Amino acid sequence: MPLSPDQQAEIDAQRGQTHTTRRATAEGMEKHLYTAHPVLDHGFVRVIDYMGDDAAICQAARVSYGRGTKSVQNDEGLIRYLMRHWHSTPFEMCEIKLHVKLPVFVARQWIRHRTANVNEYSARYSILDREFYIPARDALNAQSVVNNQGRGAALSGEEAERVLRYLRDDAMRCYDHYEEMIGQDGQQGLARELARMNLPANIYTQWYWKTDLHNLLHFLRLRADKHAQYEIRVYADTICNIVADWVPAAYRAFADYRMGGATLSATAIDCVRRMLKGEVVTQETSGMSKGEWREFEGVLNDPA
Amino acid sequence: MPLSPDQQAEIDAQRGQTHTTRRATAEGMEKHLYTAHPVLDHGFVRVIDYMGDDAAICQAARVSYGRGTKSVQNDEGLIRYLMRHWHSTPFEMCEIKLHVKLPVFVARQWIRHRTANVNEYSARYSILDREFYIPARDALNAQSVVNNQGRGAALSGEEAERVLRYLRDDAMRCYDHYEEMIGQDGQQGLARELARMNLPANIYTQWYWKTDLHNLLHFLRLRADKHAQYEIRVYADTICNIVADWVPAAYRAFADYRMGGATLSATAIDCVRRMLKGEVVTQETSGMSKGEWREFEGVLNDPA
Amino acid sequence: MPLSPDQQAEIDAQRGQTHTTRRATAEGMEKHLYTAHPVLDHGFVRVIDYMGDDAAICQAARVSYGRGTKSVQNDEGLIRYLMRHWHSTPFEMCEIKLHVKLPVFVARQWIRHRTANVNEYSARYSILDREFYIPARDALNAQSVVNNQGRGAALSGEEAERVLRYLRDDAMRCYDHYEEMIGQDGQQGLARELARMNLPANIYTQWYWKTDLHNLLHFLRLRADKHAQYEIRVYADTICNIVADWVPAAYRAFADYRMGGATLSATAIDCVRRMLKGEVVTQETSGMSKGEWREFEGVLNDPA
Amino acid sequence: MPLSPDQQAEIDAQRGQTHTTRRATAEGMEKHLYTAHPVLDHGFVRVIDYMGDDAAICQAARVSYGRGTKSVQNDEGLIRYLMRHWHSTPFEMCEIKLHVKLPVFVARQWIRHRTANVNEYSARYSILDREFYIPARDALNAQSVVNNQGRGAALSGEEAERVLRYLRDDAMRCYDHYEEMIGQDGQQGLARELARMNLPANIYTQWYWKTDLHNLLHFLRLRADKHAQYEIRVYADTICNIVADWVPAAYRAFADYRMGGATLSATAIDCVRRMLKGEVVTQETSGMSKGEWREFEGVLNDPA
Repeated sequence: MPLSPDQQAEIDAQRGQTHTTRRATAEGMEKHLYTAHPVLDHGFVRVIDYMGDDAAICQAARVSYGRGTKSVQNDEGLIRYLMRHWHSTPFEMCEIKLHVKLPVFVARQWIRHRTANVNEYSARYSILDREFYIPARDALNAQSVVNNQGRGAALSGEEAERVLRYLRDDAMRCYDHYEEMIGQDGQQGLARELARMNLPANIYTQWYWKTDLHNLLHFLRLRADKHAQYEIRVYADTICNIVADWVPAAYRAFADYRMGGATLSATAIDCVRRMLKGEVVTQETSGMSKGEWREFEGVLNDPA
Repeated sequence: MPLSPDQQAEIDAQRGQTHTTRRATAEGMEKHLYTAHPVLDHGFVRVIDYMGDDAAICQAARVSYGRGTKSVQNDEGLIRYLMRHWHSTPFEMCEIKLHVKLPVFVARQWIRHRTANVNEYSARYSILDREFYIPARDALNAQSVVNNQGRGAALSGEEAERVLRYLRDDAMRCYDHYEEMIGQDGQQGLARELARMNLPANIYTQWYWKTDLHNLLHFLRLRADKHAQYEIRVYADTICNIVADWVPAAYRAFADYRMGGATLSATAIDCVRRMLKGEVVTQETSGMSKGEWREFEGVLNDPA
Repeated sequence: MPLSPDQQAEIDAQRGQTHTTRRATAEGMEKHLYTAHPVLDHGFVRVIDYMGDDAAICQAARVSYGRGTKSVQNDEGLIRYLMRHWHSTPFEMCEIKLHVKLPVFVARQWIRHRTANVNEYSARYSILDREFYIPARDALNAQSVVNNQGRGAALSGEEAERVLRYLRDDAMRCYDHYEEMIGQDGQQGLARELARMNLPANIYTQWYWKTDLHNLLHFLRLRADKHAQYEIRVYADTICNIVADWVPAAYRAFADYRMGGATLSATAIDCVRRMLKGEVVTQETSGMSKGEWREFEGVLNDPA
Repeated sequence: MPLSPDQQAEIDAQRGQTHTTRRATAEGMEKHLYTAHPVLDHGFVRVIDYMGDDAAICQAARVSYGRGTKSVQNDEGLIRYLMRHWHSTPFEMCEIKLHVKLPVFVARQWIRHRTANVNEYSARYSILDREFYIPARDALNAQSVVNNQGRGAALSGEEAERVLRYLRDDAMRCYDHYEEMIGQDGQQGLARELARMNLPANIYTQWYWKTDLHNLLHFLRLRADKHAQYEIRVYADTICNIVADWVPAAYRAFADYRMGGATLSATAIDCVRRMLKGEVVTQETSGMSKGEWREFEGVLNDPA
């Protein structure tokens, strides 16, 4: 349960207020504002603020005096053109601010995306809550045998049970000691900035995270990808749904050119040309390594 | 005259529309939205969009669930604390998007501030207008004799006249030739991306420029400073007025700690301590160079 | 002629000095150090400093204690893997510092790449030289009729002559007046920061420009592309040759995956799959716009 | 003990190699290259590579053709001028690459400095070592009673003992379970990317971290400050010593203007002026809050 009743009440109060503005407003985004979309067992993503919409992308690309939009069809064509030709600056003209609650080990991956603004809950200043990510049974996987940094099949019953027990018990014990160490009843109480070092990486933290649409899409391309770790991918998937409502045309272009697209090397393009002329190309005759060839086949094979 | 009637009509149309939003709204900023504030002879600054207000700074600093503000007085205290201790991330949670029309030589200084998003009017794609910055008489100054990169006294009459004549005539002639070169009547017409090279640096360009409040304040500190070139300072001054209406508490803290403040070196602080104990400190006994001492005296001397 | 005898002597003196270092040293780069590679009529690119080599990319990817390299073949495989999977951080571990002399209108495109460090020659502080870019006859092209921001066929004789005359005469006249305005013989002399506004955009400026290999390759992909403006492309081409000597394995991977590669949309991949199954796909049945289809055909058609 | 014999041997082997280079070489830095300076109980900082020296700062500021230095005294004057007037770009022309081993909770603070390049040891791909930061007895402090995010007096004996026992025992138990979970003897073995979540924040990680001198000095100003958490401050102190040997003139200017300097608000400057005229100013008559006044007194009071 990601929210306490007090927190929910605070959110509801803010969500209940409306204002009149001259700013560009995205209807599809207004409905998301402040709502906490649950992710994992205690986490969430919620939109705190946003700037711009599909039209704002076109307005900036055209450096317009007024709204700068033409027909909706015309605007979507421009957005597709900009996406296809790697124009980044018009997409940077939209901005989003999220409040995210997430396990620390996910936060450590996430923060690697540097072009963003972040205010994280401070464990030097405040006391963290007793909330830890414990994977669901179907998210407990073995180390992959083909990919050194991936996961393979689900763990079998007994082994899975033991893992869950370790994760739960260690988290609880570490948190008990954290509380004991900082307690000031009959003792001085260890500084919070020190005590936090006893907490494992599945404890939840939270932050305000703000970025522009261009950098957000880059984040989503990497983190909503099937090779991303499941625990960050579910956050990315949630944000994808929000972006699809916020800037539908930009999201469609992103889905076609980035998420569903693929980059082929010069060697791979040459192979496609040869295959289209009827040549039977194999890994041996392709000029690609085994790994590249496997990825190339993955692109060409119909997923159906 | 910065705006054509068509442009003004486009702006008015956009300004006339209002929407309902759940987002934080800054009353003082709504009145500025879209209005073109004139700067120099043909330039302007106008706000296209904004995100956040004073309360949003506190909300992010507190990583709040709701609005996150307490009393107005309490919020202002927090903002002053954050500014004083160089906390940058809460100020990054506010964002502004401007449409600016400005001479190219000003744009070249401005763009050096890298942490911003920019879409500039493309002279590869479009034809620039015949608009050049010609300084007013009282902005025509001689090279400074004390500062290698500043300006000194106003030019005297005849010399000033000649300068203005050169600037006007060269601009007009260069633009005439620009038009002739790209013209397609009875000739092929030079590519725009080439023809633009004939235009002097006082021609106007325009761009959409978006940045966060922290980086904006940094820009303003450097560009609204008395040592900044006059032609960029008037843009910074205009933006200062806008920011004062947008986030009044943050702007007051900025005015006190940054614009009106001063950084003293360890050597200078030591001199202040000695002076407060009654010692008469001179440049020779101060440990400072002549330049440093002059600046130090500038800080200590009452401007009145 | 990009260099004066004095400048050449300064460069030669620096080039003549060698030092002993423990740092990773790239043989192929040492030969380039300081040498001014001429570009356009008065411009150049020269390497001032560099950090790292191919092995440094692997060393960082492996977070190694020692040199961190294994066999050369193994290293090249790792570099190709990193490039193919969009790992950017290991390439960021190499750095280059260039001294570039270039026309102002080229500098204005170049500076849009924000993740770089720049020190530009100051026309507030110093006097610019009388050096302007005047295109060679075969670089004088008409506006493209198919691409709004490109150039088409070469201009024919008489028109070309007139363009060259305008460019030369306007540059000389504007510079004459620049000199007159800042002169202090018998007058006060206009401030340099003002006088520079009279200079057209084909005047040369120069800067020190420093960036990491990842961002450099991104710059090269966009600016060495056939759609880039010729006047910046020749700089990018020169830098490509330098990078090929500096980090040969990384450059080969870049040439294969980026410069020679192509990104296909989900729609385009689907078309390739259909074509490989024997279906005849046309623009009408492709699901692509005419522009997309033209670009898609450009990828599939053998350039030979 | 931060290094294993194998690691030390790898370092020694790399340190033993020298090359000839035309690049600017800083004698004071060469002696540091690769040497692991121990920090905390298992951590270290070592220089992997560097670019530039004091002269390179001046060379860039002057956009020189050759070495660009004048007399050493002249160069130091220029560096002091640049530092005093907040010129950042010449300092960005020097670059440093470090290999750092540090506890995860320190890494989480450190990574907040975004303008840097980072390759961290991957716990998705590799297995972390059993190395945890356990504070020395004199670094075990109570929560500060005056500063919500600081630490106060050292913990007394018995309480300190219990804290150390908790930290040690929890770390060992969590690591035992981490090893058990990923083990593949008689079981599938949990994916590393999941198992790592059981490890507390005092476990050591390591990374290659590269940044420019301007951003490094900003990092040092904040993290070598007495208000920074002790565990990151000791890393900053170590780096300060390295920088002092690398770019001595820049470091002296930094020590005078930044580390030893102070920024006074407009209000504070006004108080100094009044005090120098003989007025007795108190907090009540100062216009400052209690917190500001306390900090102001801290600046004015002689530390001796």
